[in-house]
Amino acid sequence: MKILIKNGYIVSMVSEIIKGDILIEDDRIKRIGHIDCEVDRVIDATNKIVMPGLINAHTHVGMSLFRGCADEKELMTWLQKDIWPVEDKMTASDVYSASMLSGIEMIKSGTTTFNDQYFFEDETAKMAEKLGLRAILSRCIIGDGEEAHKRVAEAEELYNNWHNKADGRIKICVGLHAPYTCPPDTIRRGVELADRLGSPIHIHYLETKDEVKQMADKYQMTATEYLKKANVFNYHVMLAHGVHIDNESIETLKEISGGIVHNPVSNQKLGSGIADIRKLRSNGINVALGTDGQGSTNTLDMFEEIKSAAYLQKVIYQSATALSGEDVMKMATIEGAKVLGIDSEVGSLEENKKADIVIIDINKPHLCPMHDIYSLLAYSVNGADVETSIINGQIVMENRQIINADEQEIMRDCRRITESLFRR
Amino acid sequence: MKILIKNGYIVSMVSEIIKGDILIEDDRIKRIGHIDCEVDRVIDATNKIVMPGLINAHTHVGMSLFRGCADEKELMTWLQKDIWPVEDKMTASDVYSASMLSGIEMIKSGTTTFNDQYFFEDETAKMAEKLGLRAILSRCIIGDGEEAHKRVAEAEELYNNWHNKADGRIKICVGLHAPYTCPPDTIRRGVELADRLGSPIHIHYLETKDEVKQMADKYQMTATEYLKKANVFNYHVMLAHGVHIDNESIETLKEISGGIVHNPVSNQKLGSGIADIRKLRSNGINVALGTDGQGSTNTLDMFEEIKSAAYLQKVIYQSATALSGEDVMKMATIEGAKVLGIDSEVGSLEENKKADIVIIDINKPHLCPMHDIYSLLAYSVNGADVETSIINGQIVMENRQIINADEQEIMRDCRRITESLFRR
Repeated sequence: MKILIKNGYIVSMVSEIIKGDILIEDDRIKRIGHIDCEVDRVIDATNKIVMPGLINAHTHVGMSLFRGCADEKELMTWLQKDIWPVEDKMTASDVYSASMLSGIEMIKSGTTTFNDQYFFEDETAKMAEKLGLRAILSRCIIGDGEEAHKRVAEAEELYNNWHNKADGRIKICVGLHAPYTCPPDTIRRGVELADRLGSPIHIHYLETKDEVKQMADKYQMTATEYLKKANVFNYHVMLAHGVHIDNESIETLKEISGGIVHNPVSNQKLGSGIADIRKLRSNGINVALGTDGQGSTNTLDMFEEIKSAAYLQKVIYQSATALSGEDVMKMATIEGAKVLGIDSEVGSLEENKKADIVIIDINKPHLCPMHDIYSLLAYSVNGADVETSIINGQIVMENRQIINADEQEIMRDCRRITESLFRR
Repeated sequence: MKILIKNGYIVSMVSEIIKGDILIEDDRIKRIGHIDCEVDRVIDATNKIVMPGLINAHTHVGMSLFRGCADEKELMTWLQKDIWPVEDKMTASDVYSASMLSGIEMIKSGTTTFNDQYFFEDETAKMAEKLGLRAILSRCIIGDGEEAHKRVAEAEELYNNWHNKADGRIKICVGLHAPYTCPPDTIRRGVELADRLGSPIHIHYLETKDEVKQMADKYQMTATEYLKKANVFNYHVMLAHGVHIDNESIETLKEISGGIVHNPVSNQKLGSGIADIRKLRSNGINVALGTDGQGSTNTLDMFEEIKSAAYLQKVIYQSATALSGEDVMKMATIEGAKVLGIDSEVGSLEENKKADIVIIDINKPHLCPMHDIYSLLAYSVNGADVETSIINGQIVMENRQIINADEQEIMRDCRRITESLFRR
């Protein structure tokens, strides 16, 4: 299958913006430039931005049914009183429907790759397979003893079932919940699994101040020291949040493969604090962007994260120049791909990379005039401006119509499940 | 003309949410409840939110052509190097086109009333008249001597030309730029004008730290003391920003008619700081929301301000409970109307109030499921979800189509003017 995207503003994220064409052949970008040739499909991108799909580097897409169920609560109150009791009642089928809703939401707001950690993760894999999304998935390993043991086994089963499936779009990694919720033996088992499978590790890391205190009280160590001691940093790591990182930890993080995933909306909304991502990046640490789950973030619109990421650095540095629109767009694309360890395949528009591309219609009042494309993308575009999405060379949304699922049917399912779940 | 909005979730902002109907007769809400009667038009609002139009309580809509022209700059650098030199070249006709673009942008994102301060403000009045928006307008008075004199005269002329015109949708007030840019004689002239016309005063107030210092250096006073001494607080005042308010000023502000207009996106983006609006509100001071101009805010989407307003209080209080979605929605509607002194007419859905109503389609993946309507509105809805807008009983947008202008034509004009303006 050959697709030719004609006459767009091509924002590759790694070279100058040009006005031109992109030829897709099967799953890859074949050529970028001024192209005329026989193809199966031509997409007219005149007055449109053509850019790499966004990378949501930390989320829990099975949580969509929690959107707005318990706002304005502290993180631990929220988890213990509102989220965990309902999660205990969720079936595999519930998680499938919730994931489908999230998948549609992600595609409709420009995300083409997501990095997820939750339970019944086979269902999330089914969703990614069906909708055409690229995914890195992990079964959340948490707790201790037999329970943790069982979860490690499920994580391995998930790997065996899904790793490299769906034309290679689905990868499985090891998902540890967090230093403060995983005792040493659990971390050890997770690391052993990562070693056996050759997988990266995805873990929550220094999200709240309370967590800093818990680690000090329990282990007389920082979370960084705790993870280092457990050899976690010997593997590629995706560290979600990183709000409360001390200077010593930065020295450790400079050496790692992987990086931090910044979730600015969730961190704001839960009152967790503001991660100093400018400092991390100036120390050579890669920073990706993520939405977290809808329970805390409310939507999976990465453009909201992009805006907040730029704004918040300007807030903490009291300076309009603290982080530029271009830099934050990199974090949402190529730098995100680096954090996930998939930058040789996705995250930018380059010949021979996988064709994960979104097209944004800028012929709209709030996107007019166009002085600077990065500025438009970072500060003015929202998810609803994404018109067409291509993943692995397949069109998954065209003119805002989802190709591989019935959006109305999924919403009906989700409303029905929510009704019963919050009453069960 | 009678319009019946049927079967929506009616979010009045002053009473419990009900599922029901609204009857509009001419420019007013005639009845709210369960209504069957002969009408000219029925709008089906099944599975839709029906709420008061949003109030953008501080903006400069003539600035739309500056959107993204000079991001990542400090406020004064930005004003002096990028904005003012281009503004000097703008003609009345340029400001008309720029205002039209903003007007369309506002309607398409749910705003029905805006409070504007700029120059060539007659052009902005023409826009409000044409598009059907409700507006409070002021000619920006700034500087000293003859120049200030001339501007005061223009402000009075604007009043004579436009006050209470367009079926009463347009009001004119006195717009002073700021304490640090208006010497005592200029402030005095502005106050005299407000007195003569019986008008409120709209003024920038404590936006940056630098301003605090300038006032201390120049006048050995705080901005609050300066305005108090000039009798500004004897009038209804709309104080834009209020980022750096000390405790003594709060005591003064407790007594005023009017209130503060919080512009969270602009304040973040320019690195100006975060206004402590929770403290202001807990002291009984009304706080409205505004977007500021597109030069600093990039879009006029009030839902972005709503989200940021809620998030930022959670940031500064390090608490998820610092400001609720419901409270922030009030600030964008009824509390905004109080700050503008028009709450007896607009800001809520109540019988006999003016019919300024927006309808939001919530049958969308990112707005599903619905646990709490205020949460959906504050954290998940964006401007593109607004489907229909009614102002003063007139439909100004239906199914996202602007009724009173050709959106494409306005965008073409604005692109052409931008080209020439930034090259002139």
